[in-house]
Amino acid sequence: MITAAIIGASGYSGAELLRLLSMRSDVQVKKVTAHTYAGTRVEELYPVFSGRVELEFEAFSNQLGGVEVAFVALPSGEAMKIVPQLSSSVGRIIDLGGDFRLRSAALYEKYYHHPHAAPSALDRAVYGLPELFSDSIQSAPLVANPGCYATSVILALAPALKHDIVASEGIVVNSLSGVSGAGRTSAIDFSFSEINENIRAYKVGTHQHTPEIQSILEQATGRTISFSFVPHLVPITRGIYTTIHARLRAGMSESELIEIYQSFYRDAPFVRIKRQIPQVKDVLYTNFCDVGLVVDRHTNDLILISVIDNLMKGAAGQAVQNMNIMFGIPQERGLHS
Amino acid sequence: MITAAIIGASGYSGAELLRLLSMRSDVQVKKVTAHTYAGTRVEELYPVFSGRVELEFEAFSNQLGGVEVAFVALPSGEAMKIVPQLSSSVGRIIDLGGDFRLRSAALYEKYYHHPHAAPSALDRAVYGLPELFSDSIQSAPLVANPGCYATSVILALAPALKHDIVASEGIVVNSLSGVSGAGRTSAIDFSFSEINENIRAYKVGTHQHTPEIQSILEQATGRTISFSFVPHLVPITRGIYTTIHARLRAGMSESELIEIYQSFYRDAPFVRIKRQIPQVKDVLYTNFCDVGLVVDRHTNDLILISVIDNLMKGAAGQAVQNMNIMFGIPQERGLHS
Amino acid sequence: MITAAIIGASGYSGAELLRLLSMRSDVQVKKVTAHTYAGTRVEELYPVFSGRVELEFEAFSNQLGGVEVAFVALPSGEAMKIVPQLSSSVGRIIDLGGDFRLRSAALYEKYYHHPHAAPSALDRAVYGLPELFSDSIQSAPLVANPGCYATSVILALAPALKHDIVASEGIVVNSLSGVSGAGRTSAIDFSFSEINENIRAYKVGTHQHTPEIQSILEQATGRTISFSFVPHLVPITRGIYTTIHARLRAGMSESELIEIYQSFYRDAPFVRIKRQIPQVKDVLYTNFCDVGLVVDRHTNDLILISVIDNLMKGAAGQAVQNMNIMFGIPQERGLHS
Amino acid sequence: MITAAIIGASGYSGAELLRLLSMRSDVQVKKVTAHTYAGTRVEELYPVFSGRVELEFEAFSNQLGGVEVAFVALPSGEAMKIVPQLSSSVGRIIDLGGDFRLRSAALYEKYYHHPHAAPSALDRAVYGLPELFSDSIQSAPLVANPGCYATSVILALAPALKHDIVASEGIVVNSLSGVSGAGRTSAIDFSFSEINENIRAYKVGTHQHTPEIQSILEQATGRTISFSFVPHLVPITRGIYTTIHARLRAGMSESELIEIYQSFYRDAPFVRIKRQIPQVKDVLYTNFCDVGLVVDRHTNDLILISVIDNLMKGAAGQAVQNMNIMFGIPQERGLHS
Repeated sequence: MITAAIIGASGYSGAELLRLLSMRSDVQVKKVTAHTYAGTRVEELYPVFSGRVELEFEAFSNQLGGVEVAFVALPSGEAMKIVPQLSSSVGRIIDLGGDFRLRSAALYEKYYHHPHAAPSALDRAVYGLPELFSDSIQSAPLVANPGCYATSVILALAPALKHDIVASEGIVVNSLSGVSGAGRTSAIDFSFSEINENIRAYKVGTHQHTPEIQSILEQATGRTISFSFVPHLVPITRGIYTTIHARLRAGMSESELIEIYQSFYRDAPFVRIKRQIPQVKDVLYTNFCDVGLVVDRHTNDLILISVIDNLMKGAAGQAVQNMNIMFGIPQERGLHS
Repeated sequence: MITAAIIGASGYSGAELLRLLSMRSDVQVKKVTAHTYAGTRVEELYPVFSGRVELEFEAFSNQLGGVEVAFVALPSGEAMKIVPQLSSSVGRIIDLGGDFRLRSAALYEKYYHHPHAAPSALDRAVYGLPELFSDSIQSAPLVANPGCYATSVILALAPALKHDIVASEGIVVNSLSGVSGAGRTSAIDFSFSEINENIRAYKVGTHQHTPEIQSILEQATGRTISFSFVPHLVPITRGIYTTIHARLRAGMSESELIEIYQSFYRDAPFVRIKRQIPQVKDVLYTNFCDVGLVVDRHTNDLILISVIDNLMKGAAGQAVQNMNIMFGIPQERGLHS
Repeated sequence: MITAAIIGASGYSGAELLRLLSMRSDVQVKKVTAHTYAGTRVEELYPVFSGRVELEFEAFSNQLGGVEVAFVALPSGEAMKIVPQLSSSVGRIIDLGGDFRLRSAALYEKYYHHPHAAPSALDRAVYGLPELFSDSIQSAPLVANPGCYATSVILALAPALKHDIVASEGIVVNSLSGVSGAGRTSAIDFSFSEINENIRAYKVGTHQHTPEIQSILEQATGRTISFSFVPHLVPITRGIYTTIHARLRAGMSESELIEIYQSFYRDAPFVRIKRQIPQVKDVLYTNFCDVGLVVDRHTNDLILISVIDNLMKGAAGQAVQNMNIMFGIPQERGLHS
Repeated sequence: MITAAIIGASGYSGAELLRLLSMRSDVQVKKVTAHTYAGTRVEELYPVFSGRVELEFEAFSNQLGGVEVAFVALPSGEAMKIVPQLSSSVGRIIDLGGDFRLRSAALYEKYYHHPHAAPSALDRAVYGLPELFSDSIQSAPLVANPGCYATSVILALAPALKHDIVASEGIVVNSLSGVSGAGRTSAIDFSFSEINENIRAYKVGTHQHTPEIQSILEQATGRTISFSFVPHLVPITRGIYTTIHARLRAGMSESELIEIYQSFYRDAPFVRIKRQIPQVKDVLYTNFCDVGLVVDRHTNDLILISVIDNLMKGAAGQAVQNMNIMFGIPQERGLHS
């Protein structure tokens, strides 16, 4: 029995973690914390858990004695304030936010607009994308769970860059995100009346996942890359839909490309390379990342389309996948629904 | 040229008023106020008005010299604080909130949970439902624009009650509302992720439109009535869909009923009595209230279905209709789209 | 290992069954049939099953040797043509359609508008609402899985009627349904552009679940009842939201009522009696039926609000619950997510 | 008084035309045809027109004596069968479909997958994008109203290409479309349950607007261009959101770019160049095309974002704008709402 805590359990990623872990017979969630809701029973905030989860949100305390793994699902900038102390009492930490994904405190400050509070922890953290880094994840004390956009982009581009199939500059990435990616927020820009029947791009060319994607892809493929990233908000609750253009170095058929991709991911149970154009509904409530490939005959561009559920493979599902790997459990366990 | 001001123009009803009035060649909006946005140009908050409305939100001031009519579109409880002073400088006031719809300060306090700040103004206010009270509206200095739910319920029930067709007790009213009815709010309960793919009833049996509906229907029909009202929130932006059950006193055919209703509303250009079951899309962006009638042969219940656009006939459209009547203009002007 | 077949597996209920059963280690789906898609692999139609379900849709054949249970998920009117023959080769049949829910062929014809093709099977069929009829379900060769509306209405009303708390006439039932309840249909009325930002009532007072609700409630409570039922279509994919008005015989507090309801359902793991107003999202992707109770002090009406996921407790989830009972397995197995 | 007919008035573009024209006092719609609905009153199919439009759908006849302008809103491939004969009785024809947008019958066949039925009419047709071709539109007997995607792409790219600001190859165009762009269709892929909570790309690199965009941009700017176009379907009813990447030839500030764009469109009342990122709701129910510009400092890409209402500037609104120009009326008339 693995004993676990969820720090920041009142947000959507925290609740999704709780959903996934509460179905496990081999994991016990012993503690859930949520600053604003301390003293509230979980089922009061999330009635879906009524009769299934008998926990109460607690205030955070640095001492988490008695749990083997802590999931941290706090807003950006909060995890780095508590992880150093937390490490003294909990052996394995999986942070679902952005605080430990970049190697450089300077880069962090540039994109997150405040200084990093625990720069020395950056080196210890392992980037938790199991398809690329499962060996390091296995023994890591601190795993930085990837961003939702980053997951969809990195998994789609890694094989083509690694195999030198596409040019490393001139890459264009457009992503469409469901609104739960913004978290459980009361900002007026995320109110129903503002989002419904609407679309908007935001942080055009400046989104904080840009350096995350760049550094991880460069680390994983050994190439220097340049790309433009535009995220968009669309009126769905869950899902990330990413469309990528990259210039093929040489003429290749879609079948050849699919073969290369399938081979690259032959040991990755959650990446599916598809002949059909992927759709969000193909992955909803699952931990899959589906990737489709099309060659545009007008331009010889390789068009990659990848899709995930942002709360699953883009957050809680991937965190559970990481936990499984860290504890030597088959990575699919508890993730098929 | 009618000169107008909109007090509280940054909310959805205020913006809808601005949209309607900015298309008129016989009305000039001279002033728009919005506490939070004072100093902001309208098109910054509502880019849809870019190139069409050249106004800047101002802070509210009691002196509105130079406008003939003021529309007040403030949150509940705010209008009653300013209307008394406003009356000294503006001859005609149309309040879109709930502050002047009830005749009794005690009833107001019971349903709005705070005391009324200007009880003496309650007697002066005329209830702005033109289909029932156009004569009084014409000369009223202060018009209380009806609530959105109330409009849909009163228009549907008035003919049947007036003609003594249905029992006056045992009436059941269920309404479904679009989210813009809650106004431009940042409350988490109205965030996209909470509303989308969800339905919830709220204020079950306690909604503040209950006494409004009751007192107006009793005033208009001379009967004492009893009904239960349950409002629901559904994931659409605009629209009110109301389904009413009332017990028929005697067996009547739908055709007979339709005839009575059509006759009742023969001079009301915005009420349409329908043989088809009405749908929200039949009235979107219009000032119509469509009413359908069905007799349930299992119970001899008369089922009334009425539908409006909550920002039009349920708020700004009805306010413009009232303005037209107050200024001796044909009531349809500027309301067909 | 229970061996199963799904007849009519290409619709939404069939696909949901497949989702639920494919996660079980104690059930093996050996055959899926779908007239239109015979020869198509399941994952081509439903890419979500890619890598998880390795089946191909087959044409239907009367001989289903080698399976212990057949789920029939065909359009209304189709099941009754095949169930009699199917019974000779399959010992347990669960029909998800409406063909075997009524005891009377005459009533069937009145509401379904065509004669019943297998009237002799009506007597054999057991109504598959486990909360009321689990004993008969256990040994039934043919289970008629309840309609989605009927499930939400019957579970909400049964305790109040059984305990004689409410009047048996004058009951008003309004239900709001997600669109997947109409099945996988290409009818223009269910196209996105017609449904989105729209609401409509339909079959007002004439819906085919009316006699189902009536006969089952009368059978379960021993009372003769009269009610009016109005179903509405709202723009969500999954969910049934039912609001019921019934006249309390005597003044009772909500706490007293909740106690009676909780006691009535003390052995029913999937019915949750709530103090909060239920919401659709409380039950999405679960097999729960949540029931809330409010007393309207204006009218002394008991207002019951019940909510289910129409594809789960309203169809496939309930079918699996029935299968569990029929095979002596704990009824919750495979239904917690 | 301009007399008009709408051929194919039962689809969404036809109904939108009817909405716009029915509000005009200087235009009279004398005839509406719709094959499937011949004999049906308009308000039966579109209850929104109840009490406002007193027309009945007629079967099509080649002789339209007595109307000065015919709008053709038929499915692709139908207009080319009737326009040649129609020209003999109607002086001005505006076709909203794709049949007359390309100059080459061979190109038409390649992208529309059937031969062109009236190749000789291709030379006569003028491309109805008023911002680029208003002079030719004025006197054209046959105007080919642009495609919705094409309108949003061409208006965004024309100034940058004309002024040689961006490279003419390596352009990437991603568009997101509302579902009404597919027309009033019963195809299962456009049913609510398939579209809601879903996103999908389609016709990736093969959409029929590709050659339309290319030939018009080349004609308007005198340059040879190469681009990749990926359309996506998202769960909104109305709106096109287009994001374009093009490589800037030299470093330029956003302010310089905005100045060039504003100057290019100084006489175009319906194009608004914006400093804010445009959103769909900024243009809903209007004839505006809003264009935003951002320079991505990572890549020196110019990112253009353009947004229209696909039924207005993308179809019916633009058709009315064209009609206004053809009849010497100010182009904005009847298009502000």
